[in-house]
Amino acid sequence: MTRLRQLASVIDNDCALITSDVNRRYLTGMKSSAGCILLFKEKAYFIIDFRYIEKAKKLLENDDFIEVILQDKLYLQLEKLMKKHNAGTVSIENMTMTVSELNTFKEKLKFYVDAGNGLSDKINSLRMVKTDEETECMIKAQRIAEAGLEHMFGFIDTGRTEREIQLELDYFMLKNGAEALSFDTIALSGKNTSLPHGVPGEKKIEKGDFVLLDYGAVVDGYHSDMTRTLCVGEPSEKMKEVYSIVLEAQLAGISAVKAGITGRELDKISRDIIEASGYGKQFGHSLGHGVGMDIHEPPYAAGSYDGVIPAGSVVTVEPGIYIENEFGVRIEDFVIVTENGCINMTKAPKELVRL
Amino acid sequence: MTRLRQLASVIDNDCALITSDVNRRYLTGMKSSAGCILLFKEKAYFIIDFRYIEKAKKLLENDDFIEVILQDKLYLQLEKLMKKHNAGTVSIENMTMTVSELNTFKEKLKFYVDAGNGLSDKINSLRMVKTDEETECMIKAQRIAEAGLEHMFGFIDTGRTEREIQLELDYFMLKNGAEALSFDTIALSGKNTSLPHGVPGEKKIEKGDFVLLDYGAVVDGYHSDMTRTLCVGEPSEKMKEVYSIVLEAQLAGISAVKAGITGRELDKISRDIIEASGYGKQFGHSLGHGVGMDIHEPPYAAGSYDGVIPAGSVVTVEPGIYIENEFGVRIEDFVIVTENGCINMTKAPKELVRL
Repeated sequence: MTRLRQLASVIDNDCALITSDVNRRYLTGMKSSAGCILLFKEKAYFIIDFRYIEKAKKLLENDDFIEVILQDKLYLQLEKLMKKHNAGTVSIENMTMTVSELNTFKEKLKFYVDAGNGLSDKINSLRMVKTDEETECMIKAQRIAEAGLEHMFGFIDTGRTEREIQLELDYFMLKNGAEALSFDTIALSGKNTSLPHGVPGEKKIEKGDFVLLDYGAVVDGYHSDMTRTLCVGEPSEKMKEVYSIVLEAQLAGISAVKAGITGRELDKISRDIIEASGYGKQFGHSLGHGVGMDIHEPPYAAGSYDGVIPAGSVVTVEPGIYIENEFGVRIEDFVIVTENGCINMTKAPKELVRL
Repeated sequence: MTRLRQLASVIDNDCALITSDVNRRYLTGMKSSAGCILLFKEKAYFIIDFRYIEKAKKLLENDDFIEVILQDKLYLQLEKLMKKHNAGTVSIENMTMTVSELNTFKEKLKFYVDAGNGLSDKINSLRMVKTDEETECMIKAQRIAEAGLEHMFGFIDTGRTEREIQLELDYFMLKNGAEALSFDTIALSGKNTSLPHGVPGEKKIEKGDFVLLDYGAVVDGYHSDMTRTLCVGEPSEKMKEVYSIVLEAQLAGISAVKAGITGRELDKISRDIIEASGYGKQFGHSLGHGVGMDIHEPPYAAGSYDGVIPAGSVVTVEPGIYIENEFGVRIEDFVIVTENGCINMTKAPKELVRL
């Protein structure tokens, strides 16, 4: 069953309008910067402009559930289709549509618009559980990221700036098959590693610095996500101690992942270890998040997330300890959740690497 | 007068809540991925979390109009401030807030929320007119982009792929002072140049190809935007003819820019020249758009934009002709609008370059 048929079987109202770039790509398989899908229980229409129409028709010619239509006067086209299918109410994706877009839409369309969470929630639930085809893209992306790490082992040295390291890593991944970067690569060193969301700057690497890399590659729309903390030269005893606590918490988190655990429970497994070591206050973010066509998506391994982590979802496990004005350590893998545990897509080494 | 005071003097309701990253940066001068500003006519509050609080306090310590507050329980904090200032209604930015965010906000805040266009429109109007400080950033960004073009003159050659050209240009700009790219760089060749929004791929440059580059750099949050179409080897007569029509239309457009012209009128100046040459149908997009902290922002040089283009705004002039399955040409500069004309920030050559 195609994703569109799956979604059609669960929509709340007479029809649903999908306008977000990511969801449109997820449901049709086609990347575009415009277009919308009007989805009824029995049929879908992909309305798209002249720039993309040929590509869309070709891609979807063998799917008799969806009809590709050239966009002309969009609102009239939507109204005509809704009348044809005797529809009175249309749902929209309230998690991506802006308030102003909704206002315009309500003004121009002569039907009732349901702006509740229903449609976004249902698409998120579908997207949460990955097929093998989807995780294969993420594994490909992760292999590119790991080749990048290997390359950085030969590049990172005293005197290099954080910004140089970031740019070299990005360039390497983009030249080696990444269609894009998962997000702005974080490359920090020394004291800066204590900033969970620091921005790479002109600071030069010094002997004895931790270097923290948090980054990923995108393949066919799917993201990878990994963090490694390396040491240039010899780490202090405190650095080694903190590193081993984070690693222990990370391994315990990965061991605890399995279908049915809640986000709160999973977060707690790793957090308890860090708290027991006395660094609880220095772990100021949640343990992990889902990854897929978005870099942050459900489910969440977080104290605020009581939802269950389902089989087939992908989740990061990324505890950290950040000691202000000294250093920080974060170690992150991402895994596919299974009934009895998980498959770790990350193969990069986790013992403390010294360069 | 600071931007925040300017905005405070024109808000419609008792107060306004600014949550979008770009507007927050515009109003405070600080880049962050979180935080909000609650703005009253007499005072502003910048509520931001522990990651950014020190930086925010330091940056704004000499401004007695704005108070920096550590974010704790956000909704309670907002309510307390609104009570303190006897406020009953709060405006939000409806062009950036999602429907779901608005729903949550309305549910949690016990005050009336105005979700109309007012606040977004007023901020857009302020942002539309640039100060010298702002255009200086854009000029710096443009100089980086032009150094990139110079670099590409030595890099582009037969056998290189579009993707290689894109990555080399991006890497060059990022190494030479760009904090980011203005948007995904467009680097197309041969037949692909006929796609106004094509994506660089594995096609290799061949002798006689046009190569179209549309790209920009970001400096301190401000974008540049330029398009150049070059020829590798000798262009055909038709290529030369089309190039000269586009150039004529572009120069006419630039000559026509001055404060008070409407977007529709400006678009028509260039369009008339292309239509008179018989290529009207091959110019399928509008003439230009505003540029600033966003790559596309008001005003627009477009048939659908009846608004006036004000002095101090920045607008692109970018006519194009796209002949399916043959080639396309686009030439784009960006200019500062003045009372009597404009200042062209783009210095790169516009005669047809042959590599």
